[in-house]
Amino acid sequence: MTVGPEPRPNSGGATSRVPSGLESFLNTRRRLVDEALARAFVTPVGPAARLHEAMEYSLKAGGKRIRPILVIAAAEACGAPAERVLPAALAMEFLHTYSLIHDDLPCMDNDDLRRGKPTNHKVYGETIAVLAGDGLQAEAFRLMAENGRVTGVSPAAAVEAALLFAEAAGPRGMVGGQAVDWMAEGREVGESDVVFIHAHKTGALIRAAVVCGGILGGATSGQRVALEVYGERLGLLFQIVDDILNVEGDTMAMGKATGSDQVRKKATFPAVAGLPAAKRRAESLLGEARAALLPFGAMGGPLGDLAEYVLTRKS
Amino acid sequence: MTVGPEPRPNSGGATSRVPSGLESFLNTRRRLVDEALARAFVTPVGPAARLHEAMEYSLKAGGKRIRPILVIAAAEACGAPAERVLPAALAMEFLHTYSLIHDDLPCMDNDDLRRGKPTNHKVYGETIAVLAGDGLQAEAFRLMAENGRVTGVSPAAAVEAALLFAEAAGPRGMVGGQAVDWMAEGREVGESDVVFIHAHKTGALIRAAVVCGGILGGATSGQRVALEVYGERLGLLFQIVDDILNVEGDTMAMGKATGSDQVRKKATFPAVAGLPAAKRRAESLLGEARAALLPFGAMGGPLGDLAEYVLTRKS
Repeated sequence: MTVGPEPRPNSGGATSRVPSGLESFLNTRRRLVDEALARAFVTPVGPAARLHEAMEYSLKAGGKRIRPILVIAAAEACGAPAERVLPAALAMEFLHTYSLIHDDLPCMDNDDLRRGKPTNHKVYGETIAVLAGDGLQAEAFRLMAENGRVTGVSPAAAVEAALLFAEAAGPRGMVGGQAVDWMAEGREVGESDVVFIHAHKTGALIRAAVVCGGILGGATSGQRVALEVYGERLGLLFQIVDDILNVEGDTMAMGKATGSDQVRKKATFPAVAGLPAAKRRAESLLGEARAALLPFGAMGGPLGDLAEYVLTRKS
Repeated sequence: MTVGPEPRPNSGGATSRVPSGLESFLNTRRRLVDEALARAFVTPVGPAARLHEAMEYSLKAGGKRIRPILVIAAAEACGAPAERVLPAALAMEFLHTYSLIHDDLPCMDNDDLRRGKPTNHKVYGETIAVLAGDGLQAEAFRLMAENGRVTGVSPAAAVEAALLFAEAAGPRGMVGGQAVDWMAEGREVGESDVVFIHAHKTGALIRAAVVCGGILGGATSGQRVALEVYGERLGLLFQIVDDILNVEGDTMAMGKATGSDQVRKKATFPAVAGLPAAKRRAESLLGEARAALLPFGAMGGPLGDLAEYVLTRKS
């Protein structure tokens, strides 16, 4: 399997070359997530209505919901029902959405478009966009705490998952990656810098989604180690594919300007290692992610398919 | 007891008219908090060192540590040792500090000075300041999760405290208050708007500090209700005094430009109700806060003294 070089339709469809069976898996889980999201956001009222509206705008701007689906898939691989991890699944999407809003701010990437729609600050102004991001982060942690009230989840497991989630979100995780990414802009960086940035900026939350799903789903210690390896490889894979798509994808499919990383001299894998090496690296990461799932047997099928989907996605 | 009209020294001292006994109480608790802070921040290294440095800069810029001391005082009123609630105490200071950094941003209040020092974005630039705030919020929630690992605290209590903390931090708490405050700027607002803004922007976290201290300190349900009332009154008192100081205080004592609320037409109590009414309201809130503490008997002494300190502080 290779990424990208063959001709592909210009339709913006994200489901091309989805492993058989995965499409219905994705659709049912995505529906669960979207229904839970709808329940979490009733029509905002009160003096702060505009803030809630801004938060909702970005949450519902049409993401692929990969992180929440990973939480669910990891829990299901451990034999737990999706319902047990819905608050954690939403928490991942809330945190991811806040990071996108802040990432798009004028003082960061200064992007006008996200998922094909005007960015939050373009619609609500910079101040409300900062606060909407702040509010989404707080709500993400509220949801993580709510795990402790879900039937079948022990408070101790909820505490452990919340700790892991906070590590992944903070300065030793996602925020640290964003800071280093920003500081690296326009400077010469090596492959080790790129790995650091990717592992922290994107990888930490992907890995946390998988491992938190496992913890809350009652993973054995062996299953947890397997999920840690899988999640780490998947996180790096995810970002490398994103870099490749930024070089090769088209604006319609990505919902944002492509080639923008090159213009900004962003630290990316294709930039430091070249496109062919980046693609080889992605292939081998998929193999490692799949290998990590062996202890799960057939139960790990959807997680393996998800990794393949991450590699072959077009947006 | 009245606030402010009599002549007072221009020394910037924050300890004038501190109730007898409170000064040593404050000093020992503040030392506990500062030592825990120092342990939480070892010299930052690695690619994200500048981000950690920016976080540390604002954390150590010399706050009065009132929120963490409230956590400790509430736990102690319930008979628990300070050590049991140190992570929660730090969490309050981390969250408060993040809110100050974001509040000072050019797109918010655009302040150059905070606690007499250059604001975070003046030293580290806007991008790192946004990320330092984001990182401090994540760390605050990590610390709240860490409560669940403290000896003597049940994971269930840690989950409950984290939920309450997240509510107070998010769009239905502090962030909601900040959004409404910002939207109200320059517009005509009534007393009910000011109460909403104060109760959310400042009050929510003050109340959360008190109630979380109680939950983690093993409060009975009666004690918890008492702390909720005390915390709510104290939060409003705190902000009204801040408003009064903004009108009457001097720049040296406050560490920021005074009178700035008037220039910006900020929604404040003195602005909507007049200075004398604001002072009467503050006095009656102190009375209500003290009354709420009756079930604690002598154990509630420091909390009562803290409320008086909040009313009589000069900065």
